[in-house]
Amino acid sequence: MTNSIAVAVLGANGRMGSEAVRAVEAAEDMELVAALTRNDPLEQVLAAGATHIVDLTVPDSTEANVRFAVENGLHAVVGTTGWTDARRADLTELLAGAEGTGVLIAPNFALGSVLASAFAARAAKYFESVEIIELHHPNKVDAPSGTAVRTAELIAAERAAAGLPASPDATETSLAGARGADVDGVRVHAVRLRGLVAHQEVLLGSEGEQLTLRHDSFDRASFMPGVLLGLRQVGERPGLTYGLDGYLDLGA
Amino acid sequence: MTNSIAVAVLGANGRMGSEAVRAVEAAEDMELVAALTRNDPLEQVLAAGATHIVDLTVPDSTEANVRFAVENGLHAVVGTTGWTDARRADLTELLAGAEGTGVLIAPNFALGSVLASAFAARAAKYFESVEIIELHHPNKVDAPSGTAVRTAELIAAERAAAGLPASPDATETSLAGARGADVDGVRVHAVRLRGLVAHQEVLLGSEGEQLTLRHDSFDRASFMPGVLLGLRQVGERPGLTYGLDGYLDLGA
Amino acid sequence: MTNSIAVAVLGANGRMGSEAVRAVEAAEDMELVAALTRNDPLEQVLAAGATHIVDLTVPDSTEANVRFAVENGLHAVVGTTGWTDARRADLTELLAGAEGTGVLIAPNFALGSVLASAFAARAAKYFESVEIIELHHPNKVDAPSGTAVRTAELIAAERAAAGLPASPDATETSLAGARGADVDGVRVHAVRLRGLVAHQEVLLGSEGEQLTLRHDSFDRASFMPGVLLGLRQVGERPGLTYGLDGYLDLGA
Amino acid sequence: MTNSIAVAVLGANGRMGSEAVRAVEAAEDMELVAALTRNDPLEQVLAAGATHIVDLTVPDSTEANVRFAVENGLHAVVGTTGWTDARRADLTELLAGAEGTGVLIAPNFALGSVLASAFAARAAKYFESVEIIELHHPNKVDAPSGTAVRTAELIAAERAAAGLPASPDATETSLAGARGADVDGVRVHAVRLRGLVAHQEVLLGSEGEQLTLRHDSFDRASFMPGVLLGLRQVGERPGLTYGLDGYLDLGA
Repeated sequence: MTNSIAVAVLGANGRMGSEAVRAVEAAEDMELVAALTRNDPLEQVLAAGATHIVDLTVPDSTEANVRFAVENGLHAVVGTTGWTDARRADLTELLAGAEGTGVLIAPNFALGSVLASAFAARAAKYFESVEIIELHHPNKVDAPSGTAVRTAELIAAERAAAGLPASPDATETSLAGARGADVDGVRVHAVRLRGLVAHQEVLLGSEGEQLTLRHDSFDRASFMPGVLLGLRQVGERPGLTYGLDGYLDLGA
Repeated sequence: MTNSIAVAVLGANGRMGSEAVRAVEAAEDMELVAALTRNDPLEQVLAAGATHIVDLTVPDSTEANVRFAVENGLHAVVGTTGWTDARRADLTELLAGAEGTGVLIAPNFALGSVLASAFAARAAKYFESVEIIELHHPNKVDAPSGTAVRTAELIAAERAAAGLPASPDATETSLAGARGADVDGVRVHAVRLRGLVAHQEVLLGSEGEQLTLRHDSFDRASFMPGVLLGLRQVGERPGLTYGLDGYLDLGA
Repeated sequence: MTNSIAVAVLGANGRMGSEAVRAVEAAEDMELVAALTRNDPLEQVLAAGATHIVDLTVPDSTEANVRFAVENGLHAVVGTTGWTDARRADLTELLAGAEGTGVLIAPNFALGSVLASAFAARAAKYFESVEIIELHHPNKVDAPSGTAVRTAELIAAERAAAGLPASPDATETSLAGARGADVDGVRVHAVRLRGLVAHQEVLLGSEGEQLTLRHDSFDRASFMPGVLLGLRQVGERPGLTYGLDGYLDLGA
Repeated sequence: MTNSIAVAVLGANGRMGSEAVRAVEAAEDMELVAALTRNDPLEQVLAAGATHIVDLTVPDSTEANVRFAVENGLHAVVGTTGWTDARRADLTELLAGAEGTGVLIAPNFALGSVLASAFAARAAKYFESVEIIELHHPNKVDAPSGTAVRTAELIAAERAAAGLPASPDATETSLAGARGADVDGVRVHAVRLRGLVAHQEVLLGSEGEQLTLRHDSFDRASFMPGVLLGLRQVGERPGLTYGLDGYLDLGA
């Protein structure tokens, strides 16, 4: 196939990695040229003629993988966690000397979730009240979810920038916990229920109306459209982009 | 009109009372014969020929009103709060000597809310997980709502009777309040949002499925079908009934 | 294990059958003594010492399987379709001569779905309006779903019995299809959306309030608690029971 | 009060107009200087010193009212219907000669509804499937709602521009109407239920995930924040703006 994107998947036998292998193989405009697991030498990527890598490995190895890609002129789409501010600063510096090479690091590849967060941030300043409910399977060890905390922080920042006061709340007597966790002044409620996967609702209210932005993740397959979208655009977006929303067309 | 129910409304100028006046007037099988406010003598009820009273007054006067009704052979439908266990015991005793007279005291006349609570109690033992989310306008002073607390208690009792363990929850790290209030082991979350009135969701989950029972109260008008249903049945249900669910046909 | 239920699964290599094999093996109060596929002789069930069978085969063979079970004094839980009125009449006759033997045939084993339908039927007569929305994956070939049609029929029958008129609807101009399908006077809307599995909402409304009964099926695993509940009760419920709701405790 | 916006409300005794009178009076940065009804002469607006008008009259008089405003250098916020393409073209021409004067004509002033439509349009191209459910009180005479039709058209245009095929749908057998109305290839379902006011859900789905954008209008009061936002900005936005979304900050 000519002009297709030649992709190497790193971490190909992990849960996300094996999904990515299937997704790249199924994409008509891509070719899977390599699928590496933990101990495979990175040189295989070059030997296979890859122009793009997808890194879905572990925090300990993702930095070396991405440096290798950039140093060899390959574009990279990265779903591995562990990219601290310091690591990202180092990578930005490296990319400054690698003209034309692009890297996308995304903490979340579910398009619906990324869109819901972006919309919540944009809507935040137009409503008097806002609260967040996140709902997950009962095996989750942290509450609220990282996504809910980030969404609350985004919303709080937008409200503060617009000069809005806190959401109104006349509560005088309350059972402990009833009103949820306070994240920068935004109330966040975490439900844990057998049968669920990962879900989030942002509730925005003003006199006489409510706007609800809900995202449901039913399956890991939901991350693949975001990974493919990243692969299709990363070659034309040199430098480091953090967050898939940077690639989405949300403008007026 | 023959055979219509002759109704006296007590507390006729209150918010609920004025709704009741309108609802009784609009009902084809009822006749509004008296509408009393705070200082009107109860004897007006008898003079007007009422066979039924609706008490929507205040906790301080409801007991005297209902005693007067029972002592005069009138049936009573009561929406006023303040009926403690002791008051209800006294009333039951009084009714024992008033053969054929019925009294319905209902903390909640919204049919949908009463049905949702009854269904939640019936469903409780068939699911591994259960949580409650209630949502109200931000002027409400208590959290969670009394209805949510009672629903949680009902659910907890049904689960205990069926020998179910607590809903699963692997949470290890949590922001304070994120997991809601604990009411007899059932997590209850209270949302306060401008634009809302009174809403409640009971979420029940098991492997691969979820059942959601949601009730929305948009307007005080929602109480009137329950008041009318009470008036239509109280004459055939001697003695004291506590809770509108006692009048609903929920059997198999 | 003593006193455990000795279960044979028929159709053990089908999608539902293989789930049932896993579920029976995991149940502490059951023992899987046989797992038959298409060409295995039914006598294996007896040789293995089964006291109960689960039939998850195909319409062509389910009748013979269940007759074999009843003739040999085994209780049967049946999830296979194809049980026409005529077949069920024949089976009832057969069971009349098989004292103490029970058969449960259930078109739907998802407890939440069965409960939602039962609750919808009970609530139907207390609301002025009712409509149904069902939502499924886009590979489904029929619309609306069989479950939605049955739920609408149940609701319509309850409303008719209570003397209720049709739900109010002032629509004068409408795009074709906008108001959904008419099933015995109940409007039913069918949504088809990638990402979904099987979901249903019954919306009930009166002046000022709404009651929503929603069921979500995320996974075939949701049928297993119903199958296990059937196995635990069928031995004490001689004769034929049609529909899992007959085994549920929904009474006052 | 200095520097406050001097507002004249036209159509002040209509349902929307009387809400606007209250809202302007309550706004700290505005002053209500005139409130005109049907037969009041427009010159009262000038005599009262208004700098802005709010037109909430009827299609027959709105054009003359707005022309009068523009010819006298007043900014106008218009919620009246009847602004055809031809009328808007004429107005644009008039405004070309009225430097610095702004007019906002908005078919919908509910911020949440406008935001929900804008978000649906932006999200449309990122999902494989999309359908719309609108829900209204049963006295509504048209189905689906005008807002739902416009939202479907916006979504269809965005999908077409991105080269997306139709939402997948394997339906082979269907009851008439079950799959909703077809608006430019987008399925739209209209629910009519006592108790409701005006509600809309846009459902977007891809493999493994769903995004739901829901707006609830509980009360006409929900239009007032949009009217006030319009009044605050129209003076700095010369020329004609059609649609409140033109005033919202939705950019990246």
